[in-house]
Amino acid sequence: MKNSIGREIPECVIGQKPLYQGQFARQPEGRAFGKSLRAGRPASSKVLPSLREAVEKTGLKPGMTISFHHHMRNGDYIIKLVLTEIDALGIKDITIAASSLNPCHDFLIDYIERGVVTALETSGLREGLGKYLTDNPGKLKKPVIIRSHGGRARAIECGDTRIDVAFMGAPMCDRFGNATGAQGKSAFGAMGYAMVDSRFAEKVVMITDNLVPGYVYPYSVPQTDVDYVVAVDEIGDPKGIATGVIRMGADPVTLLLAEYSVRLMDEAGYLKDGCSVQLGGGGAPLTAAKFIQEEMEKRHIKGGFCIGGATGIFTQMLADGFFEAFYDIQTFDTVAAKSLYDNPRHIEISASHYASPWNPGPIVNDLDAVFLSATEVDLDFNINCMTDSNGILMGASGGHSDTAAGAKLAMVILPLIRGRLPMIRDKVQTVITPGESVDAIVTERGIAINPRRKDLLDKLAGSSLPVMTIEQLQDIAHKLVGKPEEMRYSMDDKDIVAVIEYRDGSIIDVVRKPLR
Amino acid sequence: MKNSIGREIPECVIGQKPLYQGQFARQPEGRAFGKSLRAGRPASSKVLPSLREAVEKTGLKPGMTISFHHHMRNGDYIIKLVLTEIDALGIKDITIAASSLNPCHDFLIDYIERGVVTALETSGLREGLGKYLTDNPGKLKKPVIIRSHGGRARAIECGDTRIDVAFMGAPMCDRFGNATGAQGKSAFGAMGYAMVDSRFAEKVVMITDNLVPGYVYPYSVPQTDVDYVVAVDEIGDPKGIATGVIRMGADPVTLLLAEYSVRLMDEAGYLKDGCSVQLGGGGAPLTAAKFIQEEMEKRHIKGGFCIGGATGIFTQMLADGFFEAFYDIQTFDTVAAKSLYDNPRHIEISASHYASPWNPGPIVNDLDAVFLSATEVDLDFNINCMTDSNGILMGASGGHSDTAAGAKLAMVILPLIRGRLPMIRDKVQTVITPGESVDAIVTERGIAINPRRKDLLDKLAGSSLPVMTIEQLQDIAHKLVGKPEEMRYSMDDKDIVAVIEYRDGSIIDVVRKPLR
Repeated sequence: MKNSIGREIPECVIGQKPLYQGQFARQPEGRAFGKSLRAGRPASSKVLPSLREAVEKTGLKPGMTISFHHHMRNGDYIIKLVLTEIDALGIKDITIAASSLNPCHDFLIDYIERGVVTALETSGLREGLGKYLTDNPGKLKKPVIIRSHGGRARAIECGDTRIDVAFMGAPMCDRFGNATGAQGKSAFGAMGYAMVDSRFAEKVVMITDNLVPGYVYPYSVPQTDVDYVVAVDEIGDPKGIATGVIRMGADPVTLLLAEYSVRLMDEAGYLKDGCSVQLGGGGAPLTAAKFIQEEMEKRHIKGGFCIGGATGIFTQMLADGFFEAFYDIQTFDTVAAKSLYDNPRHIEISASHYASPWNPGPIVNDLDAVFLSATEVDLDFNINCMTDSNGILMGASGGHSDTAAGAKLAMVILPLIRGRLPMIRDKVQTVITPGESVDAIVTERGIAINPRRKDLLDKLAGSSLPVMTIEQLQDIAHKLVGKPEEMRYSMDDKDIVAVIEYRDGSIIDVVRKPLR
Repeated sequence: MKNSIGREIPECVIGQKPLYQGQFARQPEGRAFGKSLRAGRPASSKVLPSLREAVEKTGLKPGMTISFHHHMRNGDYIIKLVLTEIDALGIKDITIAASSLNPCHDFLIDYIERGVVTALETSGLREGLGKYLTDNPGKLKKPVIIRSHGGRARAIECGDTRIDVAFMGAPMCDRFGNATGAQGKSAFGAMGYAMVDSRFAEKVVMITDNLVPGYVYPYSVPQTDVDYVVAVDEIGDPKGIATGVIRMGADPVTLLLAEYSVRLMDEAGYLKDGCSVQLGGGGAPLTAAKFIQEEMEKRHIKGGFCIGGATGIFTQMLADGFFEAFYDIQTFDTVAAKSLYDNPRHIEISASHYASPWNPGPIVNDLDAVFLSATEVDLDFNINCMTDSNGILMGASGGHSDTAAGAKLAMVILPLIRGRLPMIRDKVQTVITPGESVDAIVTERGIAINPRRKDLLDKLAGSSLPVMTIEQLQDIAHKLVGKPEEMRYSMDDKDIVAVIEYRDGSIIDVVRKPLR
């Protein structure tokens, strides 16, 4: 059966989930999920002597779902620590619901092979694990579920994802369970994903390498959401958690992409006093910060708010007064983590506050402009940022579709050609963000405006920017490198690798096993 | 039918509620309540031009429940502002679930008379309204429900109290709904009650006299919990909201009571490095701060945490390093409100974090000592802090039973005689805190230790404190002023004025109309 953007969704995965029908088509029904109530007893201690005992105390059983946050990124030790104990206890058939997974989690292949882990829900999949899952779709009991950050918050809040036990790493925690991500030797910054998991999980284990004798303030997760506290030696590798300052791109194409996108924002009328901006990951979006700052300095204007993933580049702009406030869900480098602790205008928010479509107002809904990356785009402005040109899972849904739906101007910025492959396809292999959410595709050879945005096309009528149709852009690429052969995929139901959930829980696409 | 402390609970009020069976007897069943999910649309505004329009937008109808917090205490304008609009719209049969009510709310009598308000749930009732309700139990559709602060958080969290619309006053709010109590001309400090109401109410209207064009940080209530924002001229009278510094008592009896209670804490072994303390309202409990500080200075020890209701007395002790942290649900004076904004060790918490019995651990569970007041006590150590000697509603349940249940040492401090009436009764008129939670009754003539606390009696064996039995204490009072006649009450079911819910939702007592 086809959804509203023409993606064929096989019957076998539809099940209880509706098909995607448009970015704001699905309205919520029912109530927020509530965890089981429990009575804390006076003078009882939440602190347990070992992670083993914590796993036992939670009552974890085969078939249950455990959750992890990815605030420690590629330095995370928590998933390995926890799975080691689960495995030692002989518990199998576990679903992992992670906010994302990184290369450091390639060890999960072994746990999948041995039936300890039998299902995965995540925003991102990288390197070894992504390739393994793409090549071996039958290894898990069901396809991987890919969600955006806002979609995951929604799924947890409404009970689509029921977390039996959340194992949350914290670089600072007190004996009551109050925890922060902004202090401690493993400080990673904001705890936006952990805030949602802790609130809704049936049981919450706070795992820390910094169990302080005193009190944690300000807390990201309050003690009321925490059942057990466990001290371990290390929750992660500081080198992987925070990688110093992320630098802007300096190559000519990246600079041109960044410049074009900021000029587009300006000519569209969104680069003005009080404007709000999110810069997604990737060289060109990050480099846009430089041009935004230059324009602001030139015109003596000041932005309203930014949203992170926080990098030092942006927190420096905050400190220098180019923006009034910075909302942060996850922090990407040490400079930004320090800013969260030092600068009150650097404001920690939950993943729901950031992007859940099913609350009275996530902050993405008030974005003027978002600068996004992609692995490929298509003639319908659909965006793929999840699979590579070989159809292998290697990216992340992240906040892509959330910010694109929320922002007044959603720009997707990418080079027209990568490694002799044109980046504008007839149809992207995997849709993460639907074309109706995307206002412009910015490449170094030209800018395509979504024809739905007639207002934008009118504004750009006399522009010196290289505005053209998406078909014209594709033509340029094809003339330079030719039109590549389409990838071929197994159409066997057994070879469905992943289900892509749109942020509202509807199915927007599936990932199938490539044929080679 | 009698509950476990022998209070006769009439069949007509039992309904769905269980009888009190002991302070930790009732275990929670089921899940936390979840509000209806809703989808916020991009670039939509929550700001409405008038409170009238907000009331209309919420869909408020007869029979619904609206909630208010009492952070503005006797300076509150919000309830009047809201009821004026409700009345103008012709809506009747409304239940008010307030965290507490103050003398400034006596105007509610008129709304009750006219059928606009037909039911009340609150922690406290004062002056005109308390007397009116005591004298006129038939005016409301059902008895007033009296809850402790922790019990109210529990009731809201588990869905016993379902709030249709929460009308929350905020001295600072942004256009997204992020709100704080610590800034603005009407700043009142912590927003602990509002945090619970906003999270669980079906609709939340944030009413502010300080709608800032920028961003509120740190926020007490996040925008994800707020549906509408309305600007008004004034949310309250600053004089009533914050009354400067609350002073300690200086009369000899108050000083003696305070001294005895601190000595008792010391001899019981709880006045030590890292100790945790809450001082309830009233002269003697507040004055205890002075003696605690003196002892700490003398011995070079430092406390762990205090819990507020925050007063300037205690926040100064925090600033001076006598305690490491201060947890605050509600703030009582301007000095303390400033401390919440300035001092990171002054930590805002929700009413659930403070005292709900049904989460993994409210902070009251880690109290060493609590200093409490009472209107009267009895031979079973039961405490009344709700009705006066004439049986009239005039007090508040507050955090009395919550802290008494949680603390290792719960002291109730009161003069043995007030206005020629002995304060130790055979049976208190109204039980708010059951005797099993109370460890000591401290009076200026002697200290009675609850016989359940044999350990405490052993520790005090050689004490120079005037330790005696509760019966001996009562005898002293009776010898001085005689034994008063017992009050008589109407035993008619129609004359039940209020139902006292214990913090776990069971019925611990009822208030009946006095016969005169």
